[in-house]
Amino acid sequence: MLSFVNDYSEGAHPAVLDAFVRTNLQQEPGYGDDAFCASAREKIRAACADPSADVFFLAGGTQTNQVVIDTMLAPYEGVVACETGHVSVHEAGAIEYTGHKVLTVPQHEGKMDAGELDAYVSTFFADENHDHMVFPGLVYISHPTEYGTLYTLQELKALREACDRHGLKLYLDGARLGYGLVAPGNDVTLADVARLTDAFYIGGTKVGALIGEAVVFPRRGMPAHFVTMVKQHGALLAKGRVLGIQFDVLFTDNLYTRIARNAITCADVLRAAFKEKGYRFLVENTTNQVLVVLDNERYESLRKVVATSYWERVDDTHTAVRFATSWATRMEDVEALVKLL
Amino acid sequence: MLSFVNDYSEGAHPAVLDAFVRTNLQQEPGYGDDAFCASAREKIRAACADPSADVFFLAGGTQTNQVVIDTMLAPYEGVVACETGHVSVHEAGAIEYTGHKVLTVPQHEGKMDAGELDAYVSTFFADENHDHMVFPGLVYISHPTEYGTLYTLQELKALREACDRHGLKLYLDGARLGYGLVAPGNDVTLADVARLTDAFYIGGTKVGALIGEAVVFPRRGMPAHFVTMVKQHGALLAKGRVLGIQFDVLFTDNLYTRIARNAITCADVLRAAFKEKGYRFLVENTTNQVLVVLDNERYESLRKVVATSYWERVDDTHTAVRFATSWATRMEDVEALVKLL
Amino acid sequence: MLSFVNDYSEGAHPAVLDAFVRTNLQQEPGYGDDAFCASAREKIRAACADPSADVFFLAGGTQTNQVVIDTMLAPYEGVVACETGHVSVHEAGAIEYTGHKVLTVPQHEGKMDAGELDAYVSTFFADENHDHMVFPGLVYISHPTEYGTLYTLQELKALREACDRHGLKLYLDGARLGYGLVAPGNDVTLADVARLTDAFYIGGTKVGALIGEAVVFPRRGMPAHFVTMVKQHGALLAKGRVLGIQFDVLFTDNLYTRIARNAITCADVLRAAFKEKGYRFLVENTTNQVLVVLDNERYESLRKVVATSYWERVDDTHTAVRFATSWATRMEDVEALVKLL
Amino acid sequence: MLSFVNDYSEGAHPAVLDAFVRTNLQQEPGYGDDAFCASAREKIRAACADPSADVFFLAGGTQTNQVVIDTMLAPYEGVVACETGHVSVHEAGAIEYTGHKVLTVPQHEGKMDAGELDAYVSTFFADENHDHMVFPGLVYISHPTEYGTLYTLQELKALREACDRHGLKLYLDGARLGYGLVAPGNDVTLADVARLTDAFYIGGTKVGALIGEAVVFPRRGMPAHFVTMVKQHGALLAKGRVLGIQFDVLFTDNLYTRIARNAITCADVLRAAFKEKGYRFLVENTTNQVLVVLDNERYESLRKVVATSYWERVDDTHTAVRFATSWATRMEDVEALVKLL
Repeated sequence: MLSFVNDYSEGAHPAVLDAFVRTNLQQEPGYGDDAFCASAREKIRAACADPSADVFFLAGGTQTNQVVIDTMLAPYEGVVACETGHVSVHEAGAIEYTGHKVLTVPQHEGKMDAGELDAYVSTFFADENHDHMVFPGLVYISHPTEYGTLYTLQELKALREACDRHGLKLYLDGARLGYGLVAPGNDVTLADVARLTDAFYIGGTKVGALIGEAVVFPRRGMPAHFVTMVKQHGALLAKGRVLGIQFDVLFTDNLYTRIARNAITCADVLRAAFKEKGYRFLVENTTNQVLVVLDNERYESLRKVVATSYWERVDDTHTAVRFATSWATRMEDVEALVKLL
Repeated sequence: MLSFVNDYSEGAHPAVLDAFVRTNLQQEPGYGDDAFCASAREKIRAACADPSADVFFLAGGTQTNQVVIDTMLAPYEGVVACETGHVSVHEAGAIEYTGHKVLTVPQHEGKMDAGELDAYVSTFFADENHDHMVFPGLVYISHPTEYGTLYTLQELKALREACDRHGLKLYLDGARLGYGLVAPGNDVTLADVARLTDAFYIGGTKVGALIGEAVVFPRRGMPAHFVTMVKQHGALLAKGRVLGIQFDVLFTDNLYTRIARNAITCADVLRAAFKEKGYRFLVENTTNQVLVVLDNERYESLRKVVATSYWERVDDTHTAVRFATSWATRMEDVEALVKLL
Repeated sequence: MLSFVNDYSEGAHPAVLDAFVRTNLQQEPGYGDDAFCASAREKIRAACADPSADVFFLAGGTQTNQVVIDTMLAPYEGVVACETGHVSVHEAGAIEYTGHKVLTVPQHEGKMDAGELDAYVSTFFADENHDHMVFPGLVYISHPTEYGTLYTLQELKALREACDRHGLKLYLDGARLGYGLVAPGNDVTLADVARLTDAFYIGGTKVGALIGEAVVFPRRGMPAHFVTMVKQHGALLAKGRVLGIQFDVLFTDNLYTRIARNAITCADVLRAAFKEKGYRFLVENTTNQVLVVLDNERYESLRKVVATSYWERVDDTHTAVRFATSWATRMEDVEALVKLL
Repeated sequence: MLSFVNDYSEGAHPAVLDAFVRTNLQQEPGYGDDAFCASAREKIRAACADPSADVFFLAGGTQTNQVVIDTMLAPYEGVVACETGHVSVHEAGAIEYTGHKVLTVPQHEGKMDAGELDAYVSTFFADENHDHMVFPGLVYISHPTEYGTLYTLQELKALREACDRHGLKLYLDGARLGYGLVAPGNDVTLADVARLTDAFYIGGTKVGALIGEAVVFPRRGMPAHFVTMVKQHGALLAKGRVLGIQFDVLFTDNLYTRIARNAITCADVLRAAFKEKGYRFLVENTTNQVLVVLDNERYESLRKVVATSYWERVDDTHTAVRFATSWATRMEDVEALVKLL
């Protein structure tokens, strides 16, 4: 059976496993004070062109969103996200669990519009009762979005400006950042992200790591006593080295973006095939998630031979389905799928 | 200056103050174990036609929503409310503070549609990823709603049925329940509310009490160790008698609904006057909140002589404003306002 | 049956009820923006000799402790209290409910020793693993303590100095502050409390008010957006006037301390009688709580005719019991009790 | 420089890394639904002699304690632990962060006494005010304890009986369970632990895994919707396979206990050497943590050549220090250390 079910179906890029084997018996301090984390931090700072950035490694995406958002918000503040944002829908209430509301604004193919954000916040502060409401404190965007779409540099700048106008922070969820950085037409660099946000994470789980995400707080922006709060959230790994080693490898010789390209190449072939066969896309994008609308009968027959991800109900007779590629996708599997269509 | 700013601008109905004075030096146990609370509970049970109902007294509306919703939900559940529900917007994130998400459905003049609720919950359970999402556990409605509108008995039954179909609980916020019970055309009794919900509260703060709300859990439905959880929320009054005395008075000889009528009478006069003068209503209703759309200039001039509540921005040149009446509103003030229009 | 069960068995001082009656139909804005709160704030500032103090009114003691402590602590901090502190034991986990640990130090007749506090905090910061532990952020003391004892001015200054040495805040729970201020031998004034703490509350519930506590943040120390956080905790009363009126009355012509004296006078008579009859005190104090050790048989027979408060188990055959007096205690009841002994 | 700083200084047992390499490109579903987790679960059930046990894999120890304790407690309950329990002291308030109090009882070389537990709970329920206090709901013990000591089977049974008498649950933190199972004189088997507790975890991070802990809920005891609550805590790994693979290897052919023996052998040599040289132990134990009291000068000179863990301040001139061994400790390092002493 073929599988395009997601971009975390396999283990890690072989170079990552090699590094585990190679360094296995080297003794290192715990909790991220090891030499691998130190080295990885330096490489990430360089890649972000921000020598003053704080870098912290966490295990997974929802955990990262939860810890970063909770520690960056004041108690009376909430996070503004698209109604389709991962934090809004697919984290089982992890943000609310920390006591903060997710305030939603409309989405456009998964993206937030700077004008709509500005209007939302302006309306909030103009409301004479806003002291009885949750203050917007931080804006959450994902890049690529949950729909695989990308912000342009212009759009990102506009969001930054809207945030600055109202004193809000900007946080970017980069679970699939690698696939965005190498997507055709993308004009946003890692340095742009570092320059324009107050915090973001470079996703490892979906881009070559076994597990792990690298949180970056540009311009020494990490909240005070962050390590204690990470521990308090149950998110501090004793063996921080496990995360450090992986990012050290991924940020050596641009491995992170080099391996991301495979996902795009495979997705492009798939997109072309779907287009040729007349399939409809739920949303068009240039990254590694191909979102296709299938009639339910086709979905039922296809899922017997190809594993995909249920995306959403479109109408009574149609379902949107995701075909995800990754650094590990084999072109022969893509071709086998194309034949099946 | 005239004031129609809200329905909690005055103190308490004189009979309530009389009772305070009369019982002042009677010694009673604390924390709701006093004779007044016991008597009030009995009277409320009788009024609800449910001799097995648990009744608990709390100080305010947001507190009541917070404590009741938090203690009725499982940790993985959220509360479903209209996007205009008080818990969704105007409680400063009090529900999220307790770790629970407010899941929103559309509103129709402040009301939830049973069909839309059913569709929302059905879609949730049909979603193959719903284990990664917040489970709907309890439905929150207000009656009268934030827009002063009322559910019909038929609509309430339909909501109950939708809840039963999916194993959800139903909770009714009755901050202004008194004004709903006596509104023209209302066909929902207190006994109906008790029969059709799993919990509700009878609002005192806005209907004759100094402060206080009476939470009713029909059919012995109060969560186990409720008093300890109320204390844990900081919501247990040492002098529970203060709440008991008031509800004992309000539920003697139907004082609660008798005094509510004044608000309706006054609001009716006001509504007629607005209609006659050609004003537009934001929403039409039959209870004590008159929601009028004013052009901004009119709003600015009017607010110099009449205190009202800012409601919401309608468009660039119009604002919705609330004129609230209550048990304490004097007809002479209503007439003075009518003259001003 | 006689009752010395607590100091909140009656309603309010008659002057408070008079004020409710007198002001009942005066229309005022909600949420503490009314004229009564404004006037009470001014009077409290004057009584505290701190014209810059922020004053906020809340409904009850546990609520006040919860809101104040939660909003004054950073997320990674806990509150240091005596192991017998009200927040440590008798608030059903209200502090932990807000996510903060109560860190305990030993008690000496209910009081915290400045030297022990200093040692505790010094040891914490000297511990090489303290980043994995809860940081002490604020010190909680009660005055009078749970055992009715009082800090001397010298002891209070020593605690302040210990806090300053380590950058901690100092918060004083004054649920029974009135009884402390007028106790024989007390050398701590309201102005001293304001000068030496970062926050404290003046208890109303137990000293003449129907309900209510006045939180004081000396030197403009109220946390930013406090009103929103109070709302978020479910603790914001719509009718803030209810609290303002009472403190306005209690702080007119020193009513607060004048009525407190009755409790002390009654307690003194009681103490003398117990002493004369050879009863043993659990702890000796000069305020309104008389803590007596009874053998269990005596306790069982006495509780048939006098209501008291179970305090704690002393040993297999003895129980400590509290006899509380208040502003409302009648000397004839005290004399009746003395006869019974 | 020699290091005995902890038992998580290295990577993973080579067999674990081999398995990562061998299975790397095998495609598997996420979130623990993979074949490796399924296989590991079966092997753990067999090792526990409980075919009905629920098994769930989490990333780290504090996370596991936080998620398990929070999901097993009712909202009004706290966890009872020794005052030296890991959850009491060294988890940065992770339990309180979830809203629950840690209730402490005395420790005896790190262990809880069943009689003292029973007395604590009996006193709680006998207290007439216990509705205003945090209910004990679950007992937390660690085995080996934080001091490396072990419960005997008899002691474990006595704790179970004390729990049963009062309706409490029993949870065992097995961060170093492997080292306990093979310690000389230990008479507690994995099957005993499964039979006598309501939940426990088998530590992987410190016993051969790269990261990971296996939570066991004997007798189908996993809380309903556990996966959703794990996600809500930010603790659900997308690549659950990473945890499953490791425990599958560790529970094949008793690898888990076989590799644990090395730690004990090394610690025994160390203990003998310390004893011979006249060093004093803080606590004597038979597992992999050797706790030695050093005078401060000796500590300062030793730490220049051997990395150890600061344990606690003993007095003005002495510090307790931990020398930890593990599955990875080399006997040559032990011998080098012995020479240094």
